[in-house]
Amino acid sequence: MILRRGTSPKLEHEKKLMTSPEILDRYRDIIVNTLKARIDQDHLFVYDMLRYCMGWSDKDGIPVNGVMGKSLRPSLCLFACEAVGGNMRNALPAAASLELIHNFSLIHDEIEDFDETRHHRPTLWALWGINKALVAGNALRIVADQSMEMMRKNDDKDTERILKGVELLTEACLEMIEGQYMDISFEGRIDITLSQYMSMISRKTGALIRCSLHLGAVMGTENLRTLEIFRRTGTSLGYVFQIRDDILGIWGQEESTGKPVGIDILRKKNSLPIVHAMDKADSKGRERLREIYSLQSLGEPEVLAVLDIMEQAGTRDYAQGLAHQYEEEALKSFSDAMLPDSYKFDFGVLSHFLAVREY
Amino acid sequence: MILRRGTSPKLEHEKKLMTSPEILDRYRDIIVNTLKARIDQDHLFVYDMLRYCMGWSDKDGIPVNGVMGKSLRPSLCLFACEAVGGNMRNALPAAASLELIHNFSLIHDEIEDFDETRHHRPTLWALWGINKALVAGNALRIVADQSMEMMRKNDDKDTERILKGVELLTEACLEMIEGQYMDISFEGRIDITLSQYMSMISRKTGALIRCSLHLGAVMGTENLRTLEIFRRTGTSLGYVFQIRDDILGIWGQEESTGKPVGIDILRKKNSLPIVHAMDKADSKGRERLREIYSLQSLGEPEVLAVLDIMEQAGTRDYAQGLAHQYEEEALKSFSDAMLPDSYKFDFGVLSHFLAVREY
Repeated sequence: MILRRGTSPKLEHEKKLMTSPEILDRYRDIIVNTLKARIDQDHLFVYDMLRYCMGWSDKDGIPVNGVMGKSLRPSLCLFACEAVGGNMRNALPAAASLELIHNFSLIHDEIEDFDETRHHRPTLWALWGINKALVAGNALRIVADQSMEMMRKNDDKDTERILKGVELLTEACLEMIEGQYMDISFEGRIDITLSQYMSMISRKTGALIRCSLHLGAVMGTENLRTLEIFRRTGTSLGYVFQIRDDILGIWGQEESTGKPVGIDILRKKNSLPIVHAMDKADSKGRERLREIYSLQSLGEPEVLAVLDIMEQAGTRDYAQGLAHQYEEEALKSFSDAMLPDSYKFDFGVLSHFLAVREY
Repeated sequence: MILRRGTSPKLEHEKKLMTSPEILDRYRDIIVNTLKARIDQDHLFVYDMLRYCMGWSDKDGIPVNGVMGKSLRPSLCLFACEAVGGNMRNALPAAASLELIHNFSLIHDEIEDFDETRHHRPTLWALWGINKALVAGNALRIVADQSMEMMRKNDDKDTERILKGVELLTEACLEMIEGQYMDISFEGRIDITLSQYMSMISRKTGALIRCSLHLGAVMGTENLRTLEIFRRTGTSLGYVFQIRDDILGIWGQEESTGKPVGIDILRKKNSLPIVHAMDKADSKGRERLREIYSLQSLGEPEVLAVLDIMEQAGTRDYAQGLAHQYEEEALKSFSDAMLPDSYKFDFGVLSHFLAVREY
């Protein structure tokens, strides 16, 4: 395994300060219960695959506990609804949809990237083959649609608001898929600019995070100014999330992320550190990067070489600085909504966690 | 190439009588124009891929004419709306959604089956790789959702009806995907019963055809009895379509279908002819079938052997007879709606076409 190198003292300090934000615990039970009620069919094995994917059962369908992800998107959605003064229960179907769509995208991403594990467990395609995993992903996407539509059965007679929610979710999904397409198109290229990179992550990851805050707010208020603020805040938060993800994709520890160190280099992804290094390295470094990215497949020596080039270019500090810059923008934007201090505090803790998290 | 064998004189006669049904021409222009307006984005190449998939452009994005499919599903939808006395324009967004969802399922099916051509043109994954094709399929699925939701912008203020339409489409999609999952699960097995087969095709193909008639009727009437009749009629018509498809998958001519003769045997699909032969062949034939289906890969000698077993078991006549039986059920069911004779006539021509078509 490749060793972690170049950890800055500032980051180590932040790591110690890192707290798991309370928002991510607050809604966990109600989110899990809602999600479980959405995938309760038992007439086809594909639903067992989906329960496995969500972390509720093992590959033989035996219930297990504790391998779910962060549930970031549904938590943001419920938090937004409460923050604007809404009843969190009105946002539950939307929150469930967001988490299901996120998992649909993970299933297909894992196929595309040949990822064999997620959270230290084999992925769907690794266990059941590409065809069944592809179809399972599609099924999950539809279960997400059904979750939103279920609002109508939830005594919610506001069909206008439901349709608005359905539209926002559809729009976010299309943006997310456009971002995935851009990401795939960028692979193997060495000429991606920062602006192209930002446009890609704003869709691939940003769209669903932005939609989480926006949609939650839609379920709690009709105030257009507030809605616009939540949308803008979500945009910044999406950048924080993905930039930190890119940092973990190069310098993250396998025991935290479940992925090998330098995985994004091995895959020749155009993540932020690569885009930065390609732009800021000296001419020798750039030449070496081009050589490495033109190789058919990379190994440990190439990963170490790229890490060296990044260290010289100050890539890690740059990327972490950018994450903090968007963290500040998100906070500033959120403050504009003039909400009670407790919400501002919760949001601040969450934003900071997203900027410094190790997983 | 394997030669066509065992064509019965009755089928040859029917082939001569076969007329391309007028319903499939009647709505063609308005369907194509609506679909083209749905996929008019030009900021990402993935939309060029979708236009190629729909048959409107070549792989370099140059517009071409005349390689679209039958547009069966949108035609059924618009026909149903008119037949129950509705304004066909109200059903256009739904009709477009149905065709887009059908094409989404084709893109993913082609990946799963390694199909390199459709309508004599290379498939998306064959041209642009599996990852881009997978994502393009997902994008098309979302464009289909947007089409339904667009009803709201179409001066249609009946949000209840729009939501009902969205729900029906979601339900049909999930059934379709369940059917695809069953189809994949059946591959390589030799113990599929007729009842399992019917349950699979009722979802894989039946769901969207059933939804086409049902949804079209929903856009034209609120009469529950009529809606139930259209749903039932669609179920029978779905069987007609898929059973004939299975016949073409074994005995269809490459110049008509664009696929090699015996393709479903080569792929060890559990289509109706195989299910029938496995049940009705003599013990020697069954033993041989089992042997063949347990081989890693099949070639021309195995295809010829299976065709011989099917000929002795009377498989082709049985399958064609079943298609005609469902054709009659569809007609009988449609008659219950007590619609003007011209609609009954049109529907009769279409049902018969679906039962005897060569492509």
